[in-house]
Order: sequence, then structure tokens, then C-alpha cells
Amino acid sequence: MAINLLSELRQRNPIVLNLANLVTIQDVANGLNALGASPIMSAEVQEAEPLVQLAGAVCLNLGTLTTSQVAQMHAVGQFAAQYQKPVVLDPVAVGAVTYRKRVALELLAALDVTVIRGNAGEIAALADVDWQARGIDAGTGNGDLVAIARACAQRFHCIVILSGPTDVITDGTRVAKVLNGTPLFQRHVGSGDLLSSIVAAFLAVSTDPFEAAQTACLVFAASGELVARQLTANRPATFGIDLIDKLSLVSGPELTAIQKLE
Amino acid sequence: MAINLLSELRQRNPIVLNLANLVTIQDVANGLNALGASPIMSAEVQEAEPLVQLAGAVCLNLGTLTTSQVAQMHAVGQFAAQYQKPVVLDPVAVGAVTYRKRVALELLAALDVTVIRGNAGEIAALADVDWQARGIDAGTGNGDLVAIARACAQRFHCIVILSGPTDVITDGTRVAKVLNGTPLFQRHVGSGDLLSSIVAAFLAVSTDPFEAAQTACLVFAASGELVARQLTANRPATFGIDLIDKLSLVSGPELTAIQKLE
Amino acid sequence: MAINLLSELRQRNPIVLNLANLVTIQDVANGLNALGASPIMSAEVQEAEPLVQLAGAVCLNLGTLTTSQVAQMHAVGQFAAQYQKPVVLDPVAVGAVTYRKRVALELLAALDVTVIRGNAGEIAALADVDWQARGIDAGTGNGDLVAIARACAQRFHCIVILSGPTDVITDGTRVAKVLNGTPLFQRHVGSGDLLSSIVAAFLAVSTDPFEAAQTACLVFAASGELVARQLTANRPATFGIDLIDKLSLVSGPELTAIQKLE
Repeated sequence: MAINLLSELRQRNPIVLNLANLVTIQDVANGLNALGASPIMSAEVQEAEPLVQLAGAVCLNLGTLTTSQVAQMHAVGQFAAQYQKPVVLDPVAVGAVTYRKRVALELLAALDVTVIRGNAGEIAALADVDWQARGIDAGTGNGDLVAIARACAQRFHCIVILSGPTDVITDGTRVAKVLNGTPLFQRHVGSGDLLSSIVAAFLAVSTDPFEAAQTACLVFAASGELVARQLTANRPATFGIDLIDKLSLVSGPELTAIQKLE
Repeated sequence: MAINLLSELRQRNPIVLNLANLVTIQDVANGLNALGASPIMSAEVQEAEPLVQLAGAVCLNLGTLTTSQVAQMHAVGQFAAQYQKPVVLDPVAVGAVTYRKRVALELLAALDVTVIRGNAGEIAALADVDWQARGIDAGTGNGDLVAIARACAQRFHCIVILSGPTDVITDGTRVAKVLNGTPLFQRHVGSGDLLSSIVAAFLAVSTDPFEAAQTACLVFAASGELVARQLTANRPATFGIDLIDKLSLVSGPELTAIQKLE
Repeated sequence: MAINLLSELRQRNPIVLNLANLVTIQDVANGLNALGASPIMSAEVQEAEPLVQLAGAVCLNLGTLTTSQVAQMHAVGQFAAQYQKPVVLDPVAVGAVTYRKRVALELLAALDVTVIRGNAGEIAALADVDWQARGIDAGTGNGDLVAIARACAQRFHCIVILSGPTDVITDGTRVAKVLNGTPLFQRHVGSGDLLSSIVAAFLAVSTDPFEAAQTACLVFAASGELVARQLTANRPATFGIDLIDKLSLVSGPELTAIQKLE
């Protein structure tokens, strides 16, 4: 864990290029900006190369994929390899929709993905583990989450973040866990999308992607937990606003005090 | 009226497939999620069939229509008929733009629409009643709103919700009204979009679409009214946040206490 | 300066047609609506002509441009010239991405743009002044902002708003400045997008575009400053909500009391 990456990020203000989920594009941009990164979103393949050159990292989100966006993801991913920029893939709903799983597998075969960030249903699907995913939600299953995440990481030779009540981060060998969080993350659409883009922001300011992934999970989960402690009722929209505010305010000492790691 | 459908909805957590208005896609997803449904948004026709199979109901919103989205709506609508999933159509701005009216009429001719939800200007346009619609707003006219809604329902053989200060719900014969509400709904973009998707969520957990439509209108209008009572000034953005929170918090007894029906 | 344009705007409720940045489309629609205008967003070129006819002004935003959206911008811009509707161009990130600059220059060559609204990096790029823009952010440079704005206005024969801590408004000869504001505008994604669309709303209710541009800048900057004064911490998401609320609440006397002009 490297909590000091947070001040590094705020000082360097890395540009994160997002091929975004249109459902949550505004929250993701605001969350990145609040944290201290500089978001840029693009929908046009012709600007792929200059945007990758500008960016410190790239996040590809399958949330509202179209065939033209998938083609743009392939182009952006290839430029990311050429310019050695880290890539995060967020495989939204691949556990529920076979078409999306095929798209994700093609991207993973063609590109050099640094981190896959998904919920249990999504990571299980990519690892070919039996699981009952449910639309965009994680769904339920009996598998061992660490074993599932590890199998996925080994299969695709990358880091996997299986996020949920406990975030599991693994490179296929090493495993770290972040136990912070709040059930309100599941009540607010786009929590996962924002985490994926925040992972990209930390990758942009670190040479150790495993450490960057861990730190991103802690910053996000702990910020949510700190916000939830202040809420007196189950208010998912207020949580979403306060979470973005907190990404701007949260400090290293706060994180050190609250962190629950394994 | 069947207020108990609210707890049914929360227990069953139906998946609602939205072909969404890009202006309000985030609020609609968050509103559905807060209420207790599970939103999924799609922009790709190739995943139409599996998404319809997953979904309990479908909402087609013309707010930012494109020719490719309209083609996707036809495909989704046909799968909805095949898999017997209820369909809500939100004919945004058909009263102001002839092109949009033509698109809506083609969808209504081709598909088995369960509920049309629009404002007075939109429903009047579909019923070929003279009315001065104004952009996305209802505009003004002299017609009898019940007669207009009924004419529209009879023409398209479906349930019509003409929403506004008073919501009129009709299947062409029966008429119900929900008198709850607040002028802040008109000050917050996307109130109508969210209501349409909430109607779809209630359709997914009921075998009586007229009752589901009524209940959706009550839950939405009463939640807004309860929120507005707490606001000390005309704050449309705070209203939008508090409304989503309230969809998560509102209870059957609160609805019973506040309901104003005819 | 014509603060009375605010009540004129609220009385006339002008329709503003936006070819929008998908990142901020919801905030822009809500901000326009709160202020007292009527937003309509479109993604389909086939409805270009009727929407331009309905609208009092048009805002073209390059934030998430695609080749099909750019074609739509050319069509909308040509109808705007035909029906004599004012046009605002927001050249997002043209300082950082050559492709976007080329698109902007082609639009400026083909269309009759009334106002260009950009940050220092964007306006410097259009004026061919050396500047270090940074993604969507203004970046840094040594140039004289007034000279840069004036050069841009002279080159494109239009009004230029170079917005930032100080807003510079110029038609190439006359120069006005609005010194109100808050650093929170930079912490909230879409501040510039919303200002551009608000400029369009004021253009729709004025025959003096220079005065309309000035007034729009004052209303927006002063509303932000008034909101920031009430915040006890650096809360960018709360700022975004409160800003939209304030656009609904702000009054002429408040503006007169707080205005800092040059």
C-alpha cells in the first residue's frame, strides 16, 4: 500500500482518457477531477492517437458499448501499447450478456490490458467460473472470490480487481484485500465505473501497477465509508454527491486511520 | 391503486432495459436503482435479444433519438413482443417536431406498446388534437386532458399516462387521476423520463398494467411532493437529488397518508 | 451590461438547441432550465431544420465530437444562418488536440458563429498564439489574455469570450471584463459548457450580442461566487448542485450588488 501516491496524483494531475459508459460519464469526469486527475472523454476514433499521447492512462468501459465504440477501443488500446500507457478494462455486464463477454475477450486478446476491474459476476464470467450474474449487478455465487480473481488474472496475465464489499486485488500470485466500504456503493449507479477510472489515474503516477491498484481501491472504498458514516439515512443520490466531494477532501492521514487491509 | 406493488418491486428487483435519453440517462439509472429496480442501458442492437430476455420490462425514450437508436428500438420492441415483456414509450417532443412524431407513429404501428407516457403536448400530438407544444415542454392548449388521453389510448390500444400537475391514466375506458405533485418537477429536466422508466419497473412486477401505471404515478408524484415540502426555496438541482433519495426511502404508509386520487 | 436581460430571459423562456458534450449534457440541460430557458438536445441531423426554427439560439459544443455530430453541426449551423439564429461555438480541447482544432476551424469557416466561448488554451489555439494547453484544461502561457481574445475575435469576425478567473469579452475592438468567480468552477467539470449554453440563452433574448455575452458571464460568474461564499469546504459536487439552484434563484439586485466589472 502506498498512500503517498495520493499526493503524487494530486501534484501531477494526470490526464486520464476514458472511453466511457454514457450512463455515468458525468460522475466519472467529476470524480476524477475532484480527486486531482484531469479527465478527457472521447467518442471519435480519429483523435485516438493524440489523446493517448496526452494521457497518462486509459480506461475502457463496456457499459454502453456500440460496435463503433469497440472499434475505437481497439485503436486506443493499440496506441496505448505503442506509447506504453497503462490500460484499465471495465467489463460491464459480461456476466449477464454473452455478446459483451465476446467483446471483452476480443479486447483482452488484442490489447495489453494492465488491470481488469469488475464485480464478482463479471470477473467470474471472464474466468469461466459458474456464477449467477444479474444485469449490471454482481449477482450471487458460491465460488471463492480470491480463487476467481486469481484465475482471471492468470488467464489474462494482468492485475485483476474484483470489487465489492471486500475488494480483492491480485496479479495471479500476490493477493491484497481492501475491507473498507459501505453498502451505499451498490445503491449508487456508477460506483464501479468511477473506481475503474480512478485506478487508471493511479496507474498514471506509479511504476508499480499492483500497488497503484491497491491504493486506488483504498482511496475509493475509504472515501465512501467516511461519507456513509455521516449520513443519517439511506440516501443514494446524496451519497453520490458527497463521495465526489470527499475524493477532493480525503487526506493521507484519514486513510491511514481508517484503512482495513488484508 | 396497489401501493403494495412498491414492496413487491423492492423484493423482486426487476431489471428494466432502457433505450435512454442521453440527457437524463444517469438520473434515470440512479432513480430506478434507488427505487429498488435494476437498470440496464444499451446502445447496441446486437445485444437486443439477450437484454430483452433478462429484462422484466423495456422503456423506449425518444429524447435524443438517432436513426440507429430508432432501429434498435424496433428490434428491442419486436423481441419484447416475442418474450412478452411490457413496453413503455416516452414520445419526447413529438408535439414540437414533426420528424419525432413520425418516428413515434412508426414505432406505435410496429410494436406492442403497453404504456405511452408523455406530457399534454406530446399526448395531444399523438391524438391529433390541436395543441401548442413548446420544445420539450408541455406548452398550452384548451383541450380537456382526460378526453385527449382517452383518445390517444383508444387510437393506439394501450394505456396512456398524460402526466403533469395532475396525472391522467387511462386505458381508453377507465380513467384514474393522481393529483399529487409539485411544480419543481417542471423545473428539473428528466422528471418525465424517470417516471416513464419507473412505470416500466412497476409493469415488470404486476399483471395489471393499468394498476401498475397508477401506482407508478402515485409513488413518483407523492415522492416529489414529500421532497418539495422540505425545501425552503426553489432549488431544482437539490430537488433532483432529494427525489432520488426519496425513491429509496418512501414507504407504503407514507403514500397512503398523502395520496390524492380521483 | 444589461442585468435586466435576466428578467427578460425568464419571461420569454427561450428554447436553446444544444449539440452537446455528452459528459455534461445533463448539467447543461438542468442549468438552462433552472435559469429560465428551455433546453433541447439533439443527436439526429434529420431534425436539424425544425429544431433550429423552434430555437432562439444554438450552442455547438465539441466536447465529445464524432464525425456524425460534426456533420450535424454543419447542418444546424447552416439552418441557423438561414433562419437568423445566433450560434455559440465551444471549442473544447482545441488547444490540446490538433484534430479538434481542424474541426473547429472548418466550422468557423463554414458557419456564421456569433460567439466563441473557450478557456485561455482554447482561444489561444484558435488565435494561433503559442500556449501550453493541457487536455480539457486551460493550461499555462505567458500571453496577454486580452490581446489573445481580441486576435481571435478579429480573425473570426465574432465575439470571443475567454473565460477563466477573469472573463474577457471582446468583439475585436471593445473589451469588457467580468472579475467575479470562484476557483470551484475549475474543480467542477462542465462549468465552461454550461456558460456557453447560457450565453446562447442570453443571445436569444437580446439584439446586442456583446451585451448579451457580458450579461451571461456576469450571471454565471456571480452565481458561482455567491454559492462559493456559502461553502465551508472545497466541495466540487455540492458546488455543482448549488450552482444550478442559484441560477434559478439569483436576482438582479444581487447581481448589481456583487458585480466586479472592468
